[in-house]
Amino acid sequence: MSAEPAIGRRVWAIAEGYLPEESAREDRAHRSHEAVCLLNTGEVPARVEVWIYFTDREPIGPYRLTVPARRALHQRMDDLRDPVPIPRGTDYASLFVSDVPLVAQHTRLDARPGVHGLLSTVPFGA
Amino acid sequence: MSAEPAIGRRVWAIAEGYLPEESAREDRAHRSHEAVCLLNTGEVPARVEVWIYFTDREPIGPYRLTVPARRALHQRMDDLRDPVPIPRGTDYASLFVSDVPLVAQHTRLDARPGVHGLLSTVPFGA
Amino acid sequence: MSAEPAIGRRVWAIAEGYLPEESAREDRAHRSHEAVCLLNTGEVPARVEVWIYFTDREPIGPYRLTVPARRALHQRMDDLRDPVPIPRGTDYASLFVSDVPLVAQHTRLDARPGVHGLLSTVPFGA
Amino acid sequence: MSAEPAIGRRVWAIAEGYLPEESAREDRAHRSHEAVCLLNTGEVPARVEVWIYFTDREPIGPYRLTVPARRALHQRMDDLRDPVPIPRGTDYASLFVSDVPLVAQHTRLDARPGVHGLLSTVPFGA
Repeated sequence: MSAEPAIGRRVWAIAEGYLPEESAREDRAHRSHEAVCLLNTGEVPARVEVWIYFTDREPIGPYRLTVPARRALHQRMDDLRDPVPIPRGTDYASLFVSDVPLVAQHTRLDARPGVHGLLSTVPFGA
Repeated sequence: MSAEPAIGRRVWAIAEGYLPEESAREDRAHRSHEAVCLLNTGEVPARVEVWIYFTDREPIGPYRLTVPARRALHQRMDDLRDPVPIPRGTDYASLFVSDVPLVAQHTRLDARPGVHGLLSTVPFGA
Repeated sequence: MSAEPAIGRRVWAIAEGYLPEESAREDRAHRSHEAVCLLNTGEVPARVEVWIYFTDREPIGPYRLTVPARRALHQRMDDLRDPVPIPRGTDYASLFVSDVPLVAQHTRLDARPGVHGLLSTVPFGA
Repeated sequence: MSAEPAIGRRVWAIAEGYLPEESAREDRAHRSHEAVCLLNTGEVPARVEVWIYFTDREPIGPYRLTVPARRALHQRMDDLRDPVPIPRGTDYASLFVSDVPLVAQHTRLDARPGVHGLLSTVPFGA
């Protein structure tokens, strides 16, 4: 095992969020989606609370995730269901608050007909 | 609500800026554009001044934005009008100065005929 | 030579990792792939250990890389073979631990038929 | 003018660099290229030395750039000529050393036939 057991930040904020409504293909892998990848290099599970922010209404949450020790979680944002799904076609932002350090990365596949874009960035960690 | 009420930086700089002149489709969602997303997780509104820098002339501004408490603002750069619109087809850069901490993210949809690209990054925060 | 001989971080974590199974073209340059670029601006070789993390099994590694002094290594992730190749079509994350400071950048060419995306970001450095 | 006159870092490293040999279109705007954008928010010109690193040979440089006060420079990497052009189809990395703080951002348009990708990230600042 690596000598760096628990690296990262406890709080991550993704200011940009958007789930396109349209997709050229509707199978799960190719449908427009966003994901947050959370890497827990430590020896204890990470309990994460997620808050979704909007332009014109109060934030919703917490959604709850667990990232086991020494595991990476690739969480699709369109799979978050409890308390409510994130609406498509709506600008949003997201905040992840963990009880232990994690490393996060944000990705979007934009598969609208005629667009075909892919973006990824490391969000802001606090 | 999250236990992390006001995270981020007060100053954000986006060195890369370009609004392509052409678009394969001219509806608002698919037209080539750039956006800055600003997330205010705090309990007071953020007042933001924006300055636009160029290659060969003095900066223009301030443009003024407000991000309400617990809200995310997805600001399209081609919607900035006062004092003047940002010209298309021109290299520029932008500086955001807020009175409270914010989290920022920069995105561009490049929808020129035959290009179809999407980029996003967290800019430099100071 | 530059007056900044050894910059960067010793530990880099890429939370997002995925090698698409399909590609529209199968020649090496255009096949879907990921790469990590490691820049060693220093005067001694960097010895790097790589660990690959998964969703549902223990991490594997170490893979071992060397980045010579004053050199950049563009390492394709699908070229890592020892101890085992990284499986395609599987979510993963990666951790790079160097004995000297390096600068890292992550890139993916997604060349699935009908997708055509390119992403890049500077990962989390510790 | 903004109250934040000179923000950023003096040293920036872009570990990923590649100028694709092919382009679907050969006009300057649509040809595959990379650019570094340098924003100087300060009141004095920035003098910048650029070093290009390779996989298998010594770095070359310095290339010399000037970013005037309160200006943004969008420097195409394929426009660097002195001491020598950066070869196409070759992995490289780049290091920017300025005498005053700057903000940097890296962008690539990959316009190879059938690829069409766009990437951007804030590089590593030291």
